[in-house]
Amino acid sequence: MFIPIFFILSFLFSSTNAADFCVGDLNGPVGPAGYSCKKTVTVNDFVYSGLAATGNTSNLIKAAVTPAFSAQFPGVNGLGISIARLDLAVGGVIPMHTHPGASEVLVVIQGTICAGFISSANKVYFKSLNKGDIMVFPQGLLHFQINAGKTQSLAFVSFSSPEPGLQILDFALFANDLPTDIIEETTFLDAAQIKKLKGVLGGTG
Amino acid sequence: MFIPIFFILSFLFSSTNAADFCVGDLNGPVGPAGYSCKKTVTVNDFVYSGLAATGNTSNLIKAAVTPAFSAQFPGVNGLGISIARLDLAVGGVIPMHTHPGASEVLVVIQGTICAGFISSANKVYFKSLNKGDIMVFPQGLLHFQINAGKTQSLAFVSFSSPEPGLQILDFALFANDLPTDIIEETTFLDAAQIKKLKGVLGGTG
Amino acid sequence: MFIPIFFILSFLFSSTNAADFCVGDLNGPVGPAGYSCKKTVTVNDFVYSGLAATGNTSNLIKAAVTPAFSAQFPGVNGLGISIARLDLAVGGVIPMHTHPGASEVLVVIQGTICAGFISSANKVYFKSLNKGDIMVFPQGLLHFQINAGKTQSLAFVSFSSPEPGLQILDFALFANDLPTDIIEETTFLDAAQIKKLKGVLGGTG
Amino acid sequence: MFIPIFFILSFLFSSTNAADFCVGDLNGPVGPAGYSCKKTVTVNDFVYSGLAATGNTSNLIKAAVTPAFSAQFPGVNGLGISIARLDLAVGGVIPMHTHPGASEVLVVIQGTICAGFISSANKVYFKSLNKGDIMVFPQGLLHFQINAGKTQSLAFVSFSSPEPGLQILDFALFANDLPTDIIEETTFLDAAQIKKLKGVLGGTG
Amino acid sequence: MFIPIFFILSFLFSSTNAADFCVGDLNGPVGPAGYSCKKTVTVNDFVYSGLAATGNTSNLIKAAVTPAFSAQFPGVNGLGISIARLDLAVGGVIPMHTHPGASEVLVVIQGTICAGFISSANKVYFKSLNKGDIMVFPQGLLHFQINAGKTQSLAFVSFSSPEPGLQILDFALFANDLPTDIIEETTFLDAAQIKKLKGVLGGTG
Amino acid sequence: MFIPIFFILSFLFSSTNAADFCVGDLNGPVGPAGYSCKKTVTVNDFVYSGLAATGNTSNLIKAAVTPAFSAQFPGVNGLGISIARLDLAVGGVIPMHTHPGASEVLVVIQGTICAGFISSANKVYFKSLNKGDIMVFPQGLLHFQINAGKTQSLAFVSFSSPEPGLQILDFALFANDLPTDIIEETTFLDAAQIKKLKGVLGGTG
Repeated sequence: MFIPIFFILSFLFSSTNAADFCVGDLNGPVGPAGYSCKKTVTVNDFVYSGLAATGNTSNLIKAAVTPAFSAQFPGVNGLGISIARLDLAVGGVIPMHTHPGASEVLVVIQGTICAGFISSANKVYFKSLNKGDIMVFPQGLLHFQINAGKTQSLAFVSFSSPEPGLQILDFALFANDLPTDIIEETTFLDAAQIKKLKGVLGGTG
Repeated sequence: MFIPIFFILSFLFSSTNAADFCVGDLNGPVGPAGYSCKKTVTVNDFVYSGLAATGNTSNLIKAAVTPAFSAQFPGVNGLGISIARLDLAVGGVIPMHTHPGASEVLVVIQGTICAGFISSANKVYFKSLNKGDIMVFPQGLLHFQINAGKTQSLAFVSFSSPEPGLQILDFALFANDLPTDIIEETTFLDAAQIKKLKGVLGGTG
Repeated sequence: MFIPIFFILSFLFSSTNAADFCVGDLNGPVGPAGYSCKKTVTVNDFVYSGLAATGNTSNLIKAAVTPAFSAQFPGVNGLGISIARLDLAVGGVIPMHTHPGASEVLVVIQGTICAGFISSANKVYFKSLNKGDIMVFPQGLLHFQINAGKTQSLAFVSFSSPEPGLQILDFALFANDLPTDIIEETTFLDAAQIKKLKGVLGGTG
Repeated sequence: MFIPIFFILSFLFSSTNAADFCVGDLNGPVGPAGYSCKKTVTVNDFVYSGLAATGNTSNLIKAAVTPAFSAQFPGVNGLGISIARLDLAVGGVIPMHTHPGASEVLVVIQGTICAGFISSANKVYFKSLNKGDIMVFPQGLLHFQINAGKTQSLAFVSFSSPEPGLQILDFALFANDLPTDIIEETTFLDAAQIKKLKGVLGGTG
Repeated sequence: MFIPIFFILSFLFSSTNAADFCVGDLNGPVGPAGYSCKKTVTVNDFVYSGLAATGNTSNLIKAAVTPAFSAQFPGVNGLGISIARLDLAVGGVIPMHTHPGASEVLVVIQGTICAGFISSANKVYFKSLNKGDIMVFPQGLLHFQINAGKTQSLAFVSFSSPEPGLQILDFALFANDLPTDIIEETTFLDAAQIKKLKGVLGGTG
Repeated sequence: MFIPIFFILSFLFSSTNAADFCVGDLNGPVGPAGYSCKKTVTVNDFVYSGLAATGNTSNLIKAAVTPAFSAQFPGVNGLGISIARLDLAVGGVIPMHTHPGASEVLVVIQGTICAGFISSANKVYFKSLNKGDIMVFPQGLLHFQINAGKTQSLAFVSFSSPEPGLQILDFALFANDLPTDIIEETTFLDAAQIKKLKGVLGGTG
């Protein structure tokens, strides 16, 4: 009596595996929906320890973003979700940025964070968040996080996509070869201001 | 020269607001895509403090799930994401359950949690997770979390939907009026076992 | 005058083929959206006779599920739909299960079937269905089908995905190496009950 | 010890109901994603007997399509699936048509049906189907079903949407007030042919 | 102080590229969501000049459709949008057709165009459009465009998919080997009419 | 013989209308998927002349954006597409902006336009476009358009959503009450620069 059951079982094995998950094969072809699926997986494909350590905040922004998007954590490929860790030293700031491909929910684990976003209607929504508070940032809108306290802050941010993207305003404008006169025309910033920030961020042109 | 700009601005105000977000109006009509949108919003619609406090774990499972789905936190309505807080006292367990409508990412904030899921191919993936570790649970699959340490544990879990649903296996089977003989036939459990658990969980029939 | 038309035609041939369908190439790479597309197709890629024969119900559950998911019937790959055949001998039962990736519609072709599902709110919806009756089972929820008559029953079930997945509760719990103590903790079942069913279904641990 | 559990349960009741299903309220507002959700449902919202009886084939096409789309069977609203019944008397035909909003899977229950579709590349795929055979028709493509045997035929067709739409070519062209000269120009059909069919199908102009 | 920033930057480079776009690699594998992504792109992958020239209207329909779908303009692959150019000489017509995979918006650039579509309810919506007018054609419905003026007309049509598909009614029915008797049965057209149009369009059978 | 057909027809009328389109009722409830559907529609709901006239470019940016999103042109509600008109006088510029909810395709109708976007990887893609050239801007990324010629320019831009949103960088930063010190911290701009632009654009704080 056991054999027929195991026959059914083994039959279903091959048919249903693909529907459950699609751990990304970083060496395979990539398509609009994400990476190709790895053929063999273990529990370690679904677990990631890369967010366990405090990010290095010894930098200009006194902050660090440590992502677990599908490129770092291929287990989320195709599953519509990802996560990242934000560390903000005293005075730290995650500069104005957008995620072109996802909405975000932030939860404060430690410290106090002033977070906000700006809507398409140019209205500003910002608030000081304490430990355990959450805030949602709708997809594609400019937003920021600032350590508003006197101690190191920690937050986790989740995204509605395994590849949310991250466009940091200053890096987009000043850390590449976009000509100064185009930036001037399209942002109304003064040339001197643009050149100053290109200097800081490594931009040319 | 200012007037034309403000004319453009005010024109865009009305046209683009809907695209950014749709804070749920819990008293309005609900459709397959979620709640209707509130007409007027403030920053408080995007911030929620309901996950800040430790959940009450003085219960049978020594654990608590505190959700911030769209019914509790209408700011996530329509944005493809939500979050919840898991508290596990010593010996606490989030029993075997599924989220019919979302994949989940868990991040351990405190303590040690043994977490796992079972695939459609009946393969088991489980591991002991430490502080800062993350694990992903693909949509709709049975999974569980157990406090594997000797201290209180805390985790945040994010979902790829503002309404992930939550079907706890024992409550689904034993906390309602599903007749014992149907449960017997469809789960192969013994009637005595079923009646025992119906007794604990308040089921009838 | 014909040549320009045929020029247009042949031009459109190459451009539009991909949009219509994507018959799965079971040997090509698989991604989150399904299998890669076969390059050359015939009508036989869109037709399948594998559901024509009665499934073998000489087994423990006196029932058989014969799927035409994309692994068996690659013509549905990428098209958001699939189908399966349910055969239930007298006394047959499709045990409690979920489809993590799809909603289901059942139509009774022969016999009488008692079918039901349990919602996230733990409410039970079940009814005895006769020939020609249909029932819908929302995505990801536990459900079952029982032959409620004195003759062989037949039903077809359609799914809102080419890869709905199928997680049978008993196989998920008792047909693998999930340790008995973890099952005990996460389901409240007695160890004796668990071991009994592991014995029947081939589980270990 | 029971009270805390029931507290959790009742808390989850209100939060998760919306995620499971959204039975259509045919009197409420309708949006792009479907009907609004009914507030109170019973098992009868998920079961429909309207496909149990043979359709009336005493008509020009000797065939009948009996739909269970969301307007007839509101239980499928928002669930990405629907179903219909096809009855074909001897000589019956479901004329050339498209479903603008869904792919279709057909299963033959009785008789022999010649079914086919035409791709965007103008290639024809058709075959004679016997009892138990299935065929898939990709979204939006012209297709047809003809009773190819000497007995009454029956099929069920499932769709990848609760509202697949149905555009029957002859009714679209000849059963309304589209002016004959526009039809002539856009189909290359002769005016006499157009007027003949307008006569049969009740068209004007 | 610069080094940490550039470290962050270069880290983010690899992780986020996939989320922004997926220029189609026409030689790579294709899946249900579109082409695989090209590994290296330049601005020329996002710009296309193939719609700049007037299409050749020296043909039976005195019209030309020049598509920029993903097969011609791989930059739109995965981005949910595409575009085409319509040229209509005096007396030109884009014959009755559907796009199985997309809705369409037309904007008249030059001339006067009579455009219309037919709904699933067989209702006709058509109107004469002048320069600058726009019209929307819902997904999958039969529609047409006719030069209604005495000069050459030009329009651009955009689609809600990079691969909308294009099924021209006459080509679908009469430019292939679909047997005349099947066409007769499924369209009610007379055999003589069918054979006449097969003659014009190169059909056989 | 006619009556049964018309019976079928009238039966299908009620069932399939909703699937075809959902013209927005701007006074009804709005949900995450868009506006509620108007109950009665005419051809004028699918046609819009609001883009026919040249936009008023007598303003600071010497340019005008005239949208036909669902708020202006409710016919596109739920159909996954919309369109807008760009007029650029000599020296005109559409300043750096994003569409949080859609990808965009631009087609140049008149003049020469320098257009570009910046990826998440901070790479710049820009080019001078002539009449008939098209360019695609992936969802959510910063982009701009500048009149690069010596005559008035005209372009139409289509979007992969009926509500793409529009966040103009300068208006988001300087045309509201976001405090100067927060802008300083999150953009690295000098306070003097910020205050200058707040002065021009009407910002406070």
